[in-house]
Amino acid sequence: MAEITQSELDEIVAASIPWVNDLGLAVEAIGEGTCRARLAYDDRKVRPGGTVAGPMLIALASYAAYVAVLSAAGRVELAAVINQSANFFKGTAGDVIAEARIVSRGKRLVTTETRLLAADPADTLLAQVTATYSLPAAKS
Amino acid sequence: MAEITQSELDEIVAASIPWVNDLGLAVEAIGEGTCRARLAYDDRKVRPGGTVAGPMLIALASYAAYVAVLSAAGRVELAAVINQSANFFKGTAGDVIAEARIVSRGKRLVTTETRLLAADPADTLLAQVTATYSLPAAKS
Amino acid sequence: MAEITQSELDEIVAASIPWVNDLGLAVEAIGEGTCRARLAYDDRKVRPGGTVAGPMLIALASYAAYVAVLSAAGRVELAAVINQSANFFKGTAGDVIAEARIVSRGKRLVTTETRLLAADPADTLLAQVTATYSLPAAKS
Amino acid sequence: MAEITQSELDEIVAASIPWVNDLGLAVEAIGEGTCRARLAYDDRKVRPGGTVAGPMLIALASYAAYVAVLSAAGRVELAAVINQSANFFKGTAGDVIAEARIVSRGKRLVTTETRLLAADPADTLLAQVTATYSLPAAKS
Repeated sequence: MAEITQSELDEIVAASIPWVNDLGLAVEAIGEGTCRARLAYDDRKVRPGGTVAGPMLIALASYAAYVAVLSAAGRVELAAVINQSANFFKGTAGDVIAEARIVSRGKRLVTTETRLLAADPADTLLAQVTATYSLPAAKS
Repeated sequence: MAEITQSELDEIVAASIPWVNDLGLAVEAIGEGTCRARLAYDDRKVRPGGTVAGPMLIALASYAAYVAVLSAAGRVELAAVINQSANFFKGTAGDVIAEARIVSRGKRLVTTETRLLAADPADTLLAQVTATYSLPAAKS
Repeated sequence: MAEITQSELDEIVAASIPWVNDLGLAVEAIGEGTCRARLAYDDRKVRPGGTVAGPMLIALASYAAYVAVLSAAGRVELAAVINQSANFFKGTAGDVIAEARIVSRGKRLVTTETRLLAADPADTLLAQVTATYSLPAAKS
Repeated sequence: MAEITQSELDEIVAASIPWVNDLGLAVEAIGEGTCRARLAYDDRKVRPGGTVAGPMLIALASYAAYVAVLSAAGRVELAAVINQSANFFKGTAGDVIAEARIVSRGKRLVTTETRLLAADPADTLLAQVTATYSLPAAKS
């Protein structure tokens, strides 16, 4: 079972990560160490050529990966990314789906991998992002 | 001399990269293969803890690096990032400065490095981002 | 079917990549866009603490990814890595297995992902490496 | 002043990192948080085309960065790389120089950047590598 619920997450976003709503990012599913999220296309998120801009893809991937971390580690909101590496393959002028999962979980560091896919045609891989998060030290 | 002017850039942003203005990003200086840009802090760009969120830092770094590429290669608006790697060191709850420069320029690929600094206290390194851009094939 | 055979590969290694044998790297399986390879442990490949050193893991991952590229694209020996990103999770003081696969294949760029696993206990993820290769322009 | 001497380093290499000598890597200068090292070219370290192979460049960069970490933090031999990102620009069929420096130093994490240059013609940038090391917890 996921260590965080959608309603807890909504609360965190509303209180502490307002740009998630501003950019039209939405979580579609939370698993155990996984998250699926969506970026709603609109024509202010584009780059020359009309496809979704790289930083918008990164924002989506970052949010999905962060939720995947919380889904495994609980309400460690202060978990912070320490490094992130992205490869970009294709563009899309439509919604984007992120599928994040935890690749490795240590005591202090958690590494995630997130695939970014076009919503249509489905399963077109647009980009892939690997990110490592540092967990806050456990309270005792 | 830079191969692109501030007014040409403003035109490209207005026509094709609208989120740059939405996020409050502004170019402060364009050199030959360099760009200095600023993200204006506001409390909707934050992460838990109140510092500027990672994706906002990436948006700033990406814009500054893109302008650095255009400053060297001219109006190659379709230049596209193929990979990007970021390390995050510190947070700030204020404006952020990006200093982008070209590290290596090949015929088709240009690699940039961007330092992200707190505006205050000045010169505090927040993050560093390396990104490689693919240039569109020259028209003939 | 793979576009390259083990005996063609042995020939390339003997003629042009001699360190592969010097380091005790061996291909165990070649698929269509995949490769499984092994690094034989010995006590000159270690780091303080006695586990296999990072650069040895990278050498194994690089060779496996290169073979995966050739298995899909044929004898493009001049394919060259343009960027590589690695995350390291755990150490091992024994043989290491690399499982490389192609994540995205464009006309000129091919991106691979390689998982490095301990041979024993099996399936312990030691590291993960993403690398992009530039293919030589096709002869005509 | 550097927190480690050349003779202390020679001792560590001989006892715990034997491949450094096997690959012909040599430190040329140790500063405070910096290291300059050299890879001696030989024709067993090459890739198709005859230039120095990527994993050999990574081995050199990794060693130089590790020494830079020790030059700042002292004899923390167990410092371990947690992520490494490399961009490759050009090849060389001769000696390679690495110039490593610390970019950011935190309590537990140290990030380094290493430029790899051809020895001849001097100052030709071959590759650039960023790596983050985790320091062992201080003894008390």
